[in-house]
Amino acid sequence: MPSPNTQKLFDAARKLNVGFYVGYAELAEEEGQKKRFNTAILVDNNGEIVGKYRKIHLPGTKAPVAEYARQQLEKRYFEIGNLGFPVVEALGAKIGMAICNDRRWPETFRVLALKGSEVTVIGYNSVAVNRHTGADEHELYTYHSNLTVQAGAYQNANWVVSVAKAGIEDGSPMVGSSVIVDPNGQFAAQTKSLNDEVVTHTIDLDAAEESRRLMFNFEKNRRIEEYGIITSQRGVSG
Amino acid sequence: MPSPNTQKLFDAARKLNVGFYVGYAELAEEEGQKKRFNTAILVDNNGEIVGKYRKIHLPGTKAPVAEYARQQLEKRYFEIGNLGFPVVEALGAKIGMAICNDRRWPETFRVLALKGSEVTVIGYNSVAVNRHTGADEHELYTYHSNLTVQAGAYQNANWVVSVAKAGIEDGSPMVGSSVIVDPNGQFAAQTKSLNDEVVTHTIDLDAAEESRRLMFNFEKNRRIEEYGIITSQRGVSG
Repeated sequence: MPSPNTQKLFDAARKLNVGFYVGYAELAEEEGQKKRFNTAILVDNNGEIVGKYRKIHLPGTKAPVAEYARQQLEKRYFEIGNLGFPVVEALGAKIGMAICNDRRWPETFRVLALKGSEVTVIGYNSVAVNRHTGADEHELYTYHSNLTVQAGAYQNANWVVSVAKAGIEDGSPMVGSSVIVDPNGQFAAQTKSLNDEVVTHTIDLDAAEESRRLMFNFEKNRRIEEYGIITSQRGVSG
Repeated sequence: MPSPNTQKLFDAARKLNVGFYVGYAELAEEEGQKKRFNTAILVDNNGEIVGKYRKIHLPGTKAPVAEYARQQLEKRYFEIGNLGFPVVEALGAKIGMAICNDRRWPETFRVLALKGSEVTVIGYNSVAVNRHTGADEHELYTYHSNLTVQAGAYQNANWVVSVAKAGIEDGSPMVGSSVIVDPNGQFAAQTKSLNDEVVTHTIDLDAAEESRRLMFNFEKNRRIEEYGIITSQRGVSG
């Protein structure tokens, strides 16, 4: 990045004086080996790459499952990201980066917030059908998508910009529902349809001030002495 | 517990064949010292105490703050709980215990879920006014209360029974909004008013099965190698 195909995105960012966050399938060469990651880059208003993230929470399975209506094979095609959850200072804020399924895991938002994130950016492609049964779950899955970013915003005094691919992909309808969520967990802006749309909002970073000082003052209120199992134990006990 | 005043609760539990979860200010004697905790006990349908929890996430300040409209002094009157976040097998389920402000911290639900919780029980007294400005925030604070328990339920494949004191306490209106939330994060039952109410729901523990096996299969999908900062660092970096 930029490649010949994507150079025009970078040129447009510089010309229009806007940044962007975009995801892509990355083919990397590390220690003499080819590796594939589900990656996103943050580009600033000068068209410079200022942050890069490789997705950590890969959903789905490594092998197809015969009885599933639709396959979800991210674990097959990508390796787990090896850049941590990055927070970079750019575009006037400390920006935390995540991708898609990361938003369902509260650890994502918490790690980013502990590293100073003020605005979390997320891109996602989420299908609106139950992959296992094939049932239409548009309403429920939109609710889940919003619930996770709203809770992540509120519980971490962050703005969250969570942007969906809408429409049909590979035969599956997508949930859509791009949103900008404020540090109260409320929608500041959201798409109204499942078509292409642009939504904008001028983010006031000071809107998080009371929350950071009082309710979600991590230094005064987090009880890390009691959280050990979160990092020492992967699955459920017993 | 039980004290002469509360014995009738235990008697009623046995007689009616129902359990209960109730909070109280506990005066304990430990290592020759008097200690005060914000405590809750789980009592089974035989009227036996089967679980005890002392609140870990105490909100507010140790000293009154002159400019606040209302004080929140839990840190003054209580010590931080020293029993961890308990999960006990009782009443046909693995039950995780939390109190009030604990629900705003995703670590609470995660620790309980990792310890095997299937149903998380929470009691709370939350005022509906901004303690600092005195402004009425009933709608926003009800939203926050629901958001945290709904996200906690969904992200941990737990049922959550979150029960409020409603009405007026010490001159402050309370948010109310008692809810029973299913493992999809959706309301299975909720109160309709700010008056005394009983809501009931028959919990189907199997409703969490798909979530535990696929999306929130912790063993397959949690990336504890990337979560270290959650337990090693209390506050925000820098």
